[in-house]
Amino acid sequence: MGGTNIAAAVVDKSGAVLSRASLPTPRGVGAQAVASAMARAAQDAYEQGGFTLSDIASVGVGSPGTVDPEQGLIRRWYKMGFENVPITALLARALPKPIFLENDANCAALGEYAAGAGRDVRSLVAITLGTGVGGGVVLDGSIYTGFQHAGMEPGHMVVAHGGRLCACGRRGCLEAYASASALITRTREVLGLAQADGKTAFLEAKQGNPLAMQVVEEYISYLACGIVNLVNLFQPELVCLGGGVAEQGERLLTPLQDILARENYARGLPQRTRLVQAALGNDAGILGAALLPFYSHVSTGSYSLSQGS
Amino acid sequence: MGGTNIAAAVVDKSGAVLSRASLPTPRGVGAQAVASAMARAAQDAYEQGGFTLSDIASVGVGSPGTVDPEQGLIRRWYKMGFENVPITALLARALPKPIFLENDANCAALGEYAAGAGRDVRSLVAITLGTGVGGGVVLDGSIYTGFQHAGMEPGHMVVAHGGRLCACGRRGCLEAYASASALITRTREVLGLAQADGKTAFLEAKQGNPLAMQVVEEYISYLACGIVNLVNLFQPELVCLGGGVAEQGERLLTPLQDILARENYARGLPQRTRLVQAALGNDAGILGAALLPFYSHVSTGSYSLSQGS
Repeated sequence: MGGTNIAAAVVDKSGAVLSRASLPTPRGVGAQAVASAMARAAQDAYEQGGFTLSDIASVGVGSPGTVDPEQGLIRRWYKMGFENVPITALLARALPKPIFLENDANCAALGEYAAGAGRDVRSLVAITLGTGVGGGVVLDGSIYTGFQHAGMEPGHMVVAHGGRLCACGRRGCLEAYASASALITRTREVLGLAQADGKTAFLEAKQGNPLAMQVVEEYISYLACGIVNLVNLFQPELVCLGGGVAEQGERLLTPLQDILARENYARGLPQRTRLVQAALGNDAGILGAALLPFYSHVSTGSYSLSQGS
Repeated sequence: MGGTNIAAAVVDKSGAVLSRASLPTPRGVGAQAVASAMARAAQDAYEQGGFTLSDIASVGVGSPGTVDPEQGLIRRWYKMGFENVPITALLARALPKPIFLENDANCAALGEYAAGAGRDVRSLVAITLGTGVGGGVVLDGSIYTGFQHAGMEPGHMVVAHGGRLCACGRRGCLEAYASASALITRTREVLGLAQADGKTAFLEAKQGNPLAMQVVEEYISYLACGIVNLVNLFQPELVCLGGGVAEQGERLLTPLQDILARENYARGLPQRTRLVQAALGNDAGILGAALLPFYSHVSTGSYSLSQGS
């Protein structure tokens, strides 16, 4: 579920997408209408594949904002004006199945862990470079979310004390330097362009534009700073980078890997954290959501995963 | 075990110290001599309390540097020149008991979790403000260490991109701003003093010295930045601050709590991370080491806690 579209898919246990559908997210019409659209998207998806509701074992929902998977609540989703929306209960009316809810970045991390770049590792940090900088941590099959499920916000880790103002109110957040939005803003500023997207600086830099090279170098420097910080804290077996900017592939990864090799606090150890591109693209979130029933959470409070039905 | 002293104590299951002893860490004489001194300190401690070796159930060791609890190795302890020292095996010769090894900052975190400030919580981040900035995370009774046990180095999280050079080689690490050493260096620089300790700036600020107030304010601003970062990533139920600087108590905690209340990404939720002073002082590490057998690790690799014997 996103602020623009609702994407639904039928996914099997192995993480294969069997059929899919999507429709626009209804705006300004309240949470029940959004839940009804979600149920409709799900129905479209299973009918598309020739399935019926009885073929569906459970429903996984990935939502932006802060969610409470225990209570099936979207606590806050600013863009939609949602506050304490019982999305699981609303959805269950039209979709009478066990329903699992999780934050979308956590779903993407779980998707990569279960069926993508992290298939063969026991611990993974996934970072998504989009409008913001999202992230998720999976440790030995459990999503780590924090005691109120609002942890792992790498975008709101300050890497430049007193630096650029972030939408969250802090100064110097990683998101203000390493999101696709920050890259685009900086591309426009430095190159003096009225229009630019997340690829412009990389394209121009490849053609030798020194200003674009400066933008790319700065972007990589801050992103690397955030990645090394996460490695020095979580030391996961793998970090994977997703989102639009990550599609730059080796042009982004190679300099990031060089900085990680130099600045990783555990660089002297024989086994070190690897940094790779995410493997599932936009499907990571949908796969992770679908596979939620097979994974658990690192317990950091009185907590057991509940499900609507 | 430290670079200056080896402290030993007999600790019961509840985390009470029954007797203790300490002796200087032998320097420049090799790992076997250090292990022998550790065994001697342990013997002094139990004899001091009128115990014999048969009263001792197990031995816990807290060590600086990067350790491998599985293999009983000190992988790297730069100050002592240790590299891949099998400390558990060396110690077991003189102390034939199950021996548990962990990093000293992790032991301190576990001590606070089991018997100190975190007695009543399920998740805790402990930060120690000393020569460096150390840290540990305990999640529902498990120490989180990373896949090669070298994670949770909050001192080596960059908060000021391109800032002060840190001993680790990065620029702008939290340790270069928020350690007691950094505070002392800054106090000397700004106040123009030949001698200063970790209390000088706080004392002078209390007496209205504007330069000292500036040093304290700057110190608190960077430390708060690091703490909020950790809260935005781990969202533990509790953060506790230990080490010499934390003895400033409310004068340090109140402004830090104010900044956390303002900048915590999850500040809108009804339940938020609390920030308190550590409760056990220098005993946190020794208690945590002794209690290691009763706790486990968050699994992030093929891993089960082994023990020498």
